Amino acid sequence: MPDPPEIRILGLGHFPEVTPGMDLPALILAAAAAEHVAFAPGDILVVTQKIVSKAEGALVDLRTIEPSDLAARWAAAWDKDARQIEVVLRESKRIVRMANGVLITETQHGFVCANAGVDASNVAGHDTVSLLPRDPDASAARLRAALRAALGFDLPIIISDSFGRAWRYGIVNVAVGVAGLAAVADYRGRTDAHGYVLNASILAVADELAAAAELIMGKLDGRPVAIIRGYAYEAAEGTGRDLLMDPSRDLFR
Amino acid sequence: MPDPPEIRILGLGHFPEVTPGMDLPALILAAAAAEHVAFAPGDILVVTQKIVSKAEGALVDLRTIEPSDLAARWAAAWDKDARQIEVVLRESKRIVRMANGVLITETQHGFVCANAGVDASNVAGHDTVSLLPRDPDASAARLRAALRAALGFDLPIIISDSFGRAWRYGIVNVAVGVAGLAAVADYRGRTDAHGYVLNASILAVADELAAAAELIMGKLDGRPVAIIRGYAYEAAEGTGRDLLMDPSRDLFR
Repeated sequence: MPDPPEIRILGLGHFPEVTPGMDLPALILAAAAAEHVAFAPGDILVVTQKIVSKAEGALVDLRTIEPSDLAARWAAAWDKDARQIEVVLRESKRIVRMANGVLITETQHGFVCANAGVDASNVAGHDTVSLLPRDPDASAARLRAALRAALGFDLPIIISDSFGRAWRYGIVNVAVGVAGLAAVADYRGRTDAHGYVLNASILAVADELAAAAELIMGKLDGRPVAIIRGYAYEAAEGTGRDLLMDPSRDLFR
Repeated sequence: MPDPPEIRILGLGHFPEVTPGMDLPALILAAAAAEHVAFAPGDILVVTQKIVSKAEGALVDLRTIEPSDLAARWAAAWDKDARQIEVVLRESKRIVRMANGVLITETQHGFVCANAGVDASNVAGHDTVSLLPRDPDASAARLRAALRAALGFDLPIIISDSFGRAWRYGIVNVAVGVAGLAAVADYRGRTDAHGYVLNASILAVADELAAAAELIMGKLDGRPVAIIRGYAYEAAEGTGRDLLMDPSRDLFR
């Protein structure tokens, strides 16, 4: 550890408009080279969901969508695009809240977020929306494997998206896909400096890493990838699902 | 901006056990000197709630607490300390959920969190618990004023605590007090690279900064303060209250 201990967050720009079928690992390696960044063991890569979804073709042309009656009524009541609402409903397993023009659902993956992660921002084409990757952990695993093959060492991957929260205003970046690191740090049973045994401290570190990455990514800065360097992560086969509250313990279903 | 753009998170240890009445700004300046860190304009200081509460004497000796019947029943049912439950109830404005041994309340400040922020970890004395600071924004403002007087320039302050979330597993650091920076970054009305006007992007950047700081603070590493260097914050009179969802818009009361 240097004195003081330090974590660095580096932002990678230099990405083209990502389109379906593009080789995302190659784009990331090219972006790093353009920024004169050499990946190093210990680095963590945070990649925004948007470019993953674009590369995987998780895009919907709204001109192909026929809204259901429910979608049409909701859209009319709240001045929304009925086709986009229809896509939200199709991506949803369960409606959590539908009020005040806000549509919060549980996605097919189990994420609870606004609009099932369907988003029209930072997408080319006026009638196109992006979806969350079909399986963000699998997306992260593929990226990890491709980068390991290219680099010769392991880089943990976090795929991030910005979600709203209950009770708190504003959205924050969270981890939707994880590969190569523990998504949580479990301190239960460990003893603090005063001899107190911690009993409730499970830190969602992958979410904190995703949040940290957002600070350099921004929403309009064209930096869809961040490198986090110097964080003592636990190498493990963590997943984005590790960050979902077990429904049987969730008091806010 | 360097190439690539970079944010650094530095952790400050070298704190004594903080006790009521201690001069927190002096302790922070001493810790920085011990780590050979010179504060610089542009730095943001994240300070964990625990040392703020200790310095302010926001501690309760449980031996002085007479539990109410409700506290005693709940504690007996779930194997908790009835005196600590009583303190939680006293710190609460409203019970949000009380089930499965979990007590989630709205604090007097308006925060929704487990146990009203009452916590026995990292506190000296087996019968002592810490409370959230009475007014975390005021605590942040005092720290900001004292450090500005000492340093000759402004350092924005975030006071952080770790809160659980609905739907997601694990706790994350959030901002409970803020001074000298905008707590949110409001992108509404701005246009992305594809000409799409963002309509829902309000980033809770103070929460993301708090989360980033936790990565270096840890729970057991004795680093209660982090410096975030290189983040292009908006200098403004933001507050921790800016991060609370307006009750009239909160679908998860």
